[in-house]
Formats: sequence, C-alpha cells, structure tokens
Amino acid sequence: MTDIVAERMARLRAKMAETGTGLVAIAPGSHMQWLVGFYPHPDERPCLLLVAADKAGFLMPALNADAARQDSDLPMFTWADADGPDAALADALSELFADRAGRVVLDETMRADFALLLLDALPGIERAFTEDTVGQLRSMKDEAEFRKLKRSALLNDEAMKAAWAGIKPGMTEKEVARIVSDHFAANGARVQFSIVGANENGAHPHHATSDRVLREGDAVVLDIGGRIGGYPSDMTRMAIVGEAPEGYGQIHSIVEKAVQAALAAAKPGVPAKAVDKAARDVIDAAGYGEFFVHRTGHGLGIDVHEPPYITATSETILEEGMVFSIEPGIYLPGRFGIRLEDIVIMRADGPEILSELPRDAFVVRV
Amino acid sequence: MTDIVAERMARLRAKMAETGTGLVAIAPGSHMQWLVGFYPHPDERPCLLLVAADKAGFLMPALNADAARQDSDLPMFTWADADGPDAALADALSELFADRAGRVVLDETMRADFALLLLDALPGIERAFTEDTVGQLRSMKDEAEFRKLKRSALLNDEAMKAAWAGIKPGMTEKEVARIVSDHFAANGARVQFSIVGANENGAHPHHATSDRVLREGDAVVLDIGGRIGGYPSDMTRMAIVGEAPEGYGQIHSIVEKAVQAALAAAKPGVPAKAVDKAARDVIDAAGYGEFFVHRTGHGLGIDVHEPPYITATSETILEEGMVFSIEPGIYLPGRFGIRLEDIVIMRADGPEILSELPRDAFVVRV
Repeated sequence: MTDIVAERMARLRAKMAETGTGLVAIAPGSHMQWLVGFYPHPDERPCLLLVAADKAGFLMPALNADAARQDSDLPMFTWADADGPDAALADALSELFADRAGRVVLDETMRADFALLLLDALPGIERAFTEDTVGQLRSMKDEAEFRKLKRSALLNDEAMKAAWAGIKPGMTEKEVARIVSDHFAANGARVQFSIVGANENGAHPHHATSDRVLREGDAVVLDIGGRIGGYPSDMTRMAIVGEAPEGYGQIHSIVEKAVQAALAAAKPGVPAKAVDKAARDVIDAAGYGEFFVHRTGHGLGIDVHEPPYITATSETILEEGMVFSIEPGIYLPGRFGIRLEDIVIMRADGPEILSELPRDAFVVRV
Repeated sequence: MTDIVAERMARLRAKMAETGTGLVAIAPGSHMQWLVGFYPHPDERPCLLLVAADKAGFLMPALNADAARQDSDLPMFTWADADGPDAALADALSELFADRAGRVVLDETMRADFALLLLDALPGIERAFTEDTVGQLRSMKDEAEFRKLKRSALLNDEAMKAAWAGIKPGMTEKEVARIVSDHFAANGARVQFSIVGANENGAHPHHATSDRVLREGDAVVLDIGGRIGGYPSDMTRMAIVGEAPEGYGQIHSIVEKAVQAALAAAKPGVPAKAVDKAARDVIDAAGYGEFFVHRTGHGLGIDVHEPPYITATSETILEEGMVFSIEPGIYLPGRFGIRLEDIVIMRADGPEILSELPRDAFVVRV
C-alpha cells in the first residue's frame, strides 16, 4: 500500500468511526480512484471495494483480478462469469464485515444493480451515501491536488483562447467544439465536455452542441473542460460574433456583478448557501431572477461535479482547500444565454481563481 | 411522438402487461435513448423517465427541461436545484402511478441514489431490473439497427487495418491506440475503447493500454471499438511483431476452432449457454480450459455490453435479430493472450458475421 493510499484509508476510517459507519462500498469510478489510486475496468460485472473498520477487500470479476493485483495488495473475492457474484459477495461480507455493526455507506454513483445486490445481502441495515465520509474528505484538496487542478485550468485557458481565435461566421457549433478537443488532444489532455451554444441555444444551460451555424450577431456560450493528469477543468466564457445582440452588454454586466458578489461572499466558515444568495440577490435585484435557473456552483476534483454544491439551501460550511465553481447565468428563452464560470479554491482570506483569463466577452471581428 | 417512439412504447407496454409491471423507471442513458430517441444531460441531478400502463412522464431537473421539451412531448415534473427532487417525484408518482399496482422495473444502470430515491418513495413495492422488458426488447434488432451496426463494424475493420499498417517495433501500446482513435475521428466516429496489449499485457483480458514498447517477438491483442450513428463496434484481432512467441500458432488455432464451434452452435431456439459450451469444450479439450477466464460473448446494440450474455449458465434462448459477440480467448500469465472476437447477428439459418476481416494474425514485417 502506498503512503497516500494508507493515509487516505486512515482518514476514511476516522470518518467511519465518527459517523458510525461499519462498511463503505465503492464501485469502479472516482471514489475508488481517490481512495486506492486506480479502478478496474468498469462494466456490468459487479465490482466493489469494501472497506470495514479493520479490513478491506474487493469483490472482483475473475477476468480483472490479475490486472487489479498489480495495483492493490488488498484481498480479492473473485467470481467467474459462469457463477455470478453472489457467493463471492457472501464470502467477502463474512470475512470483512462479520459483525454487521454500524451503517453501510454506498457510493451514490454505483449502478443500481450493484447497490441492490449489496443491500439485499445485508437485510435491514441502515444505509447512507458518501456525503459525510468519502465525499467530505474528497471536497478538501491537498496542495498536490491543487497543482493538478491549476495545471488543468491553465490548459483550459489555452483551449478557450484557441476556440476564440478560431471562431468565424459560417462555422457550426460542433466545429468550434472540435477546435477545443483538438487543442486538448495536442497537449496530452482529452476533452471532457464542450458546450458551444449560439444565441437561442445558449439559453439552454446544458445545450447539446449542434450543427447550428454561427452568424454575425450571435452571443456564444463556451463551457469547456478537459482532463489532464487525472484532473479536469471547467470554465465558461462568452464570445460575440461581430455586433452583440440587443441588450447583451447590460446582461453580461449583471452576470459579472453576480460572480463578483459570490467571490466576495465566499469565506471559510460561511455556508455554501450564502454564496448562492450573494449571486442570486444581484440577479434578482436586476429583475432577472426567474432566468437564473440553476445553482451557483459545484465542487470540482477528480469529478467535474462533486461536493460541495453551492445551492440556495446548502448548509455545507466552506473550508480552506475546497474547490468549487462560481457560475451564475441568465438565460433568455429564444434570445441568448450568458454564463460566466470560474473555478476557485477556498483560501484563508477568500477564493483564489484558478483561471487567468478575464471574464470579458471575446469579440470575433467579422 | 414519432412513429418509432410510439411503436417502441407500445411494445414496452405489451411486455409490462405480460410481466405484471406497473412502472418502468429509466435514467439518462442507453435505455432512454432506445425508447424515446434522446436523453437529457446526465449528471448527479435525479432525472427519470417513468412509464406506467397508460401514462408516462419525466422527473426532470429544471435547468434541462426546456431542452428536453424539444425532444419529447411527455409531461415534465420539474424540480429546481434549491428544492431537490422529492416533491416533484411525489407529484409524478401520484399523477402517473396512483394505483401502485404491479412491480417496478428499474434501469439497472442508473445511479444508486436515483434508484433508492424512487424505491424509498414506493415502500414495499416489488422490484426487478429490465431483463424481461426493455432489455429483452433491445436485444432484438430491427433492420435499421442492423444497418447501423454493420456500418460501424465496417469502419472498425478499417481502423484495425490502419492499426496493423501502422505498427512498428519501438512504438508504445498507446501510440497504436492513437492510430485507432485518429482513424475513427477522421471518419466522423469516435473511439469507444481500444485495448492494445503486448505479450504479457495481452494476458490480461481488460489490460489498460500502456506505455509498454512493442518489440520484435510480441503477440499483440487489439480489441477496439468506435461509435458512429449512435451504434458501436467491437472486434478483437491479433498482430505479431516479426517472429511469433513460442507456442503462438498452436494457441491461435485452438482459439480459432473455438470461434468456429461457437458459430456452428449458434442457431435460433438454442440457449446461449450452448454457444458458450461449444467454444469452451474446444479449449477444455486442448487442455487450456483454466486459461479461458471469461464468458464467450455479450450482446451489442446502443451499448457495447448488453443482453444477451453468452455465459456457461445462461438459459436465454437465441432468437433471430439478436446481435452478440463470440470472443473466446486463452490467457497465459506472463506470456501472452489470444482473443478473437466477431460480432454476429442471429439469422434464421445461423449467425452472420458483421466484420469482413479474417481472424488470422497480422504479421508486422520487421
């Protein structure tokens, strides 16, 4: 077991003791990556890392066991395709969690069939998701994680600049997205997502980038992220093709003020909802409250979305080392949308923005 | 509602009646894509398509509702980030599933938190996964789906040929994988996976393609798939760098005979396990049974892995229109692995192979 795995396992077990958790069950994915530094090939074959108070092991499809043993010295309870996982799971539970004392924490992202396989094997057990164990630990980044996120953010700045420089009237949204993915690929990263939404399309926060052709007068939402060194980026900026649509400048400056208000409100010890409120109050006061249809932000780590969530009702207390987005937006149906998004890390004296790119709209000369 | 959505919804409701299913709950993903032709942006916000006997609707995060309304005229029970999904789900269930008669079928791929949110709202209800409803319907492909799968398979043949042509001693596994992904990208597709495993790495069926340098004397497993027109491909072939490792030829011919035995055994009306047995018997008889560590195949449709699964214990009866892989393998730890994989569609008189590429090992001249 490497030092970092041993250290994170110890922190998890301290949280388990604190929260009355007897067993944590994690599927191949980001929780497993964070805790043990790898995860086996994920597919429909049930695969779980089971962490109990003093033992841990894997429920493992036989065909992945040899490869997994190169990455972990934890015991493997293997099962073959012909047999199914039931007997191996029963063995694992009696070996690792014989007393069945305490609640079970489930990786909320695992497949429903994995979760119900486990819960059916532990009838009547109290269950929870990871928010006060693994999720909380993951929300606090150490400096090594911060450096990876910073590197990822700076590459994203370059990808955004490449997209800005490449936009020409007559291109499609997908062609702009291709500039972004090519930029990531050429720099050893891979694109994670790229929302390119022109005018009316930008008014859908999660617009699916399309063959819509960019024209003079379009305001274009560019929400892009890549992944390098295991850590993603996420940033939203605007581009204007020639002349901005009517009313653009005023709305942009309201959203910018909302970002600044959220940045000013974010301090260690403050609940996440206070940050949401600061942004929302600016937009409400300007009369656009009904067009800010989502939360102000989300955490970012191995996952693009993870705790802490910056919502109107979140009591989560912001702490030093938390990394999250601030991304208010105003979406005017049929016209255009504006979202400005930065990722910040919570420092003792306030948020530090990872990107070095200004939030002004880039104007494409036509 | 388009004709194809109406037709699939009707087929699903017939299956629901047949199986005593009162409600089918589907998350953003391939089941939803198959049934209604799209799915909303998937993230941690609970989103479900709920299909009852005579009504259907979506539990929908508010920020995705406008975009989803462009793709579906089903009612949307929306919820805002600040409120959470509980009230909207309660509304949806009382509107769509007031009588709570019959079992609930859950999309087995949905996140655990979505599944438990729904099950907690329906205490005591009988539950099942999709294997005898949506899963079974999806396993039978119509000719339009077959044409898409065939197109995807033929592009995969070309990607494999590009990889073969590009392999040189001194390249890494990842560099070979890059040839594959570039080939897909240049042809309007995207790579879905590419396992490149040289010698000892190929002995892990799910080897994670690495920086291992290819050398003369390597036997290389190439298991690649791309996606075009919404449908994937999946094929495994071998390449030999110069001289084959000792014993290669004999093992390759055993695996080839296992493929042929499986092809000969696959007929409509035969259980899937008979196909697995045909392949396994060949490998057992040759004395390598313990090194064939996985099932013989899996279905392929919108997903790379879907029903029917070709395992030693599957009673699933093969029917015309089913599409699945035949992919026996022999994995010799520390030496090399050989897997040969073709995708077939079950026709009245036997399986039709989608690929047009022979299963012989390609020899790289050095």
